Parts: sequence; structure tokens; C-alpha cells
Amino acid sequence: MRLISFEDNGQAGVGVMVGDDGFIDLATAAPDMPVTLKEILVSVDGWQDKIAAATDGKAADRALGDVTLLPVIPSPQASWCVALNYQTHKDETGLDRSEYPEMFLRMPVSIVGHGQELVRPREEMAKRYDFEGELAAVIGKPGRYIPESEAFDYIAGWSCYNEGSVRDYQSHNRQFGLGKTFEKSGSFGPWMMTPDEFGDPYQQNIITRLNGQEKQNSSINLILTRIEGIIAYLSEGYTLQPGDVIVTGTPGSLPGTNKAMEPGDVCEIEITGLGTLSNPVIAAE
Amino acid sequence: MRLISFEDNGQAGVGVMVGDDGFIDLATAAPDMPVTLKEILVSVDGWQDKIAAATDGKAADRALGDVTLLPVIPSPQASWCVALNYQTHKDETGLDRSEYPEMFLRMPVSIVGHGQELVRPREEMAKRYDFEGELAAVIGKPGRYIPESEAFDYIAGWSCYNEGSVRDYQSHNRQFGLGKTFEKSGSFGPWMMTPDEFGDPYQQNIITRLNGQEKQNSSINLILTRIEGIIAYLSEGYTLQPGDVIVTGTPGSLPGTNKAMEPGDVCEIEITGLGTLSNPVIAAE
Repeated sequence: MRLISFEDNGQAGVGVMVGDDGFIDLATAAPDMPVTLKEILVSVDGWQDKIAAATDGKAADRALGDVTLLPVIPSPQASWCVALNYQTHKDETGLDRSEYPEMFLRMPVSIVGHGQELVRPREEMAKRYDFEGELAAVIGKPGRYIPESEAFDYIAGWSCYNEGSVRDYQSHNRQFGLGKTFEKSGSFGPWMMTPDEFGDPYQQNIITRLNGQEKQNSSINLILTRIEGIIAYLSEGYTLQPGDVIVTGTPGSLPGTNKAMEPGDVCEIEITGLGTLSNPVIAAE
Repeated sequence: MRLISFEDNGQAGVGVMVGDDGFIDLATAAPDMPVTLKEILVSVDGWQDKIAAATDGKAADRALGDVTLLPVIPSPQASWCVALNYQTHKDETGLDRSEYPEMFLRMPVSIVGHGQELVRPREEMAKRYDFEGELAAVIGKPGRYIPESEAFDYIAGWSCYNEGSVRDYQSHNRQFGLGKTFEKSGSFGPWMMTPDEFGDPYQQNIITRLNGQEKQNSSINLILTRIEGIIAYLSEGYTLQPGDVIVTGTPGSLPGTNKAMEPGDVCEIEITGLGTLSNPVIAAE
């Protein structure tokens, strides 16, 4: 099952994808459901079965092109990202990390949905604005002190994430800080795919293309701290909540390429077996 | 004017302090106002004048002891903190920073209100859990690319903040990450004081006491990146919004003391001219 978060005439909604261009609007198929995906995860026990019962075998009743896609979870309580979680990316940055996952937070306003414009910061402020293709996990139920062996039970679904980064600001200090959370600098979508459909994430690849040219292509199996370890680590500090987003790290660029994005570019993050997140880049006003 | 955010029987409310023990409940005095301080800042033009008109000269109608105080802003879109913003704290950590403010984010679940329990993480996970007494500013109106000369116009009010820190996790990597946002590890209150009443923050001191013993006492004028500079810097990256919280850094400990907190302790953060934030410490389950 692939679920989208969308907006139509200022109204939030959730849809179930049918094929790649249409969806079933839950406001029609399951009018008792909350209108945001986070609220469904928080408050509807057995949400996946209930949504399946309301939509299985039905045709799409709306077209993807008629609505504005939002980030899969527009307002999570936390968007946790991991630095330097592939050796190829560590190598290209020259930075080092310990055996613990190196975590930082992004703000919701830094993220747009599939198809929406990414904003390259003003030239005089930032010489370098980079994509980072990543796999994101969405948490589905509350959990504290989660053992690694149970971590995948806490995942409601998976998505593509462009963890767009303003390198100048990121390097101002030891903390990445503002450089990882410029307004509309990243994206999250197009949909959340449930674990039964996505299967084993370590069998898939992250592929990033800029204007059609391949820039990243890495097996997710090359990840350093595995996803189970990241979830277990974070749950030592606080109770993970439905809708929390865990962005699992970016691989290095392919030889002879870099990650820079400029106005006019189109950046695509594909996770094989999951989908492709695509965004045009514009210049900041 | 001093404004509190509180909860009573599961219902959120905002109050105006009268003296140190009582307040006027805006649900009674100004029933048209939203029931959260953030929503008042977002949606009520001229909120301070309107609240003053509804409460000036009136007696308190409720006692502080009868409600649960919440963090001044319980769910800001961002709680930005500054690392190493006093020379005395830089010296005691041995860490360095650049001329830019070194920023990181905290999650709302990491913060409790005045009088609520701070939670010391499990002994086997964390050897060291520290207070950090700080001055917090609450943003009152949206702003991008704010010049330093106008930065104070964007502040709705001021408060005390205990930027409680789990040092073991903070030092796992270059990013402070999870170590700065353990559940219920910090606090924010007791109230927000408006700028007309607080005056010049640089004339005031931060004083922290643990079980009555003075542990920090520093003029805020010794701050490194001044508050105007922090606001200007953050506004380069995104549009500051009403309710955003900017926590301005902690001074070093007094000679011969440290910042450690243990279960059973009571930690008080006083900002002179503003008030005192007090919290007991308990052990994590």
C-alpha cells in the first residue's frame, strides 16, 4: 500500500495510490478516518487493514496531478537525520564519526512534497547547495528502549527523502545547525510504502539523478549504522511517536560527480522498489 | 506583563500573572482569545494591548498552585539553542567555535514547565546529566532576513530556560544530537515576560542554584554572539514564526562547582528582573 499526503483547495487529505497517476481519496472511501496521515497513525488501531478494506479493488477516483503533494508527514514531532552513514559519503567529506549514529534534527519548514520547488539559497549567502538522496522510515507506534531485534515492528512505512544541505552554513561550526534546515531545502515523498510491500530495505538501491544524469547509485546494504540500530539508539533518549521520521543517511556521489543543485535543475531520488521523488530547483527571492 | 501557559483537567489555558502566586485566567477575562500562547501570538494583532485592556487592575482569579504549568510555548516549530556562547563555558568545555553562532535544535518532548519533574536518564546509560541556565527569547512575529538593528522588534517576550544536557550522548559525535533532547531533560518558564517590563537583557544576570547552592552567576552582557546576531543569523535560513524559541547560551559554572544534577536535587534558574524557574529532578524508570 502506498499512501500520500496532499492538499486541495487548502484542505488536507490522505490518499491510497492506484497505479502511478491516480489515487483513492480517503475522505470519500473512508470518511471516518482523520485527514492527516500522522493522525491516522496516532489514533486508528489497525489502520492498514481498515484502509485496505475500504479501498481494495476500487478504481482511482482522483488524479495525482490535480492536487498538491505534501511531505509524507508534514509536521512530525521529529525529523531525525544521520550524518556520514555510508563509507563512500564519509570518504568524500573527509569527516569522521564514532560507532554511534551521528544524529541531527531538521525543521518541518525545510521540507516540501513531491513535485514542489526546492529553493536554492541566495548566491551571496551560499556557494554550495547539495542534494542528499536517502531512505526515510516513518514510525508507526510509540516506543521507548526498543531492542534492535524489534525495531522494524515500529515502522509504519518507507519513503524517499532529499536531505538538501546548505554546505556553507553546515560548516560554520561543529553542529550542522541551520545548514541542514534552510526553508524548502529538502523533500519527502512521493508516498509512504508499507513494509509488507517494500520488503527488505537492504535489498534496494538509492539512485539520484540530476537532470537525468545519474549522480548516486548505492546499495542500501552498505549503510554503516543499520536502521534497526538507529531506531534503538533514538529510543534510548525519548519515546518515539507515530509520524516520527528517521532519515537514514546518504551514499557518496558517483566518481567524477558532485551533489550540487542549481536553479533550473530537476533532482530525482529513486529508491528501487519504492518510487521516485522529483523536485525542480528555483532560486531564492 | 507576565504570561503563563498552563493545563487544568486536560484543558490548555493562558494566564496573566498578578503578584507571584495568582493569575487572571484569559478564558474568563478574554474569552475570545485562543487558549494557547503560540496561537495568540500567531493570530491576535495587538495581543498585548488587548490582554492589558482585559486584565489591567483586576485581581487574580486563580492560584498558580492549582494548575500545572506547561513550558511557556509547549509546541514551538523550533527550539533553537546556542552552544558555547559564553567564554566561561567555552573554557570549561575545552571546545571551540567560530564567529558564527553554533546552533542546534531541541524537541518539544525534551522540555517541561516550571515545577514539573526533570528526568535524569538511567545510570547505566548516562554518567553525567547537567543543567544549563539560560535566557530564552520567544519570537512574536514572522521575519526573514532580519537586520540586527531590528531583531528586538521580533521578540514577544523573555523567559528562563534549563537547557538540560546528557553529556555522554552529547559527546558521542560531532553533532550534539540526542544528548540535547532527552525526554523531560530541560525546562522553560515560569512565564514569558514582555520586553517593556524586562527591559535591556544585557543588564541582567543568569543565576543557577542547585539545592540552594549558587552554581552559575554571570552577567548576560558577557554573551559572545549577542541575541540580535543570533536572530539575524537564523532568519537567513528560514522565516522565523511566532512562538519560535531562541535559547541564548549558558555561562560557565562558578569556580569549584560543576553542573551535574542527580535525583532528589532541585534546580533553580533565575534571570534577575524576570523570575525563577525551579524543577525537582527524579530518576528515569
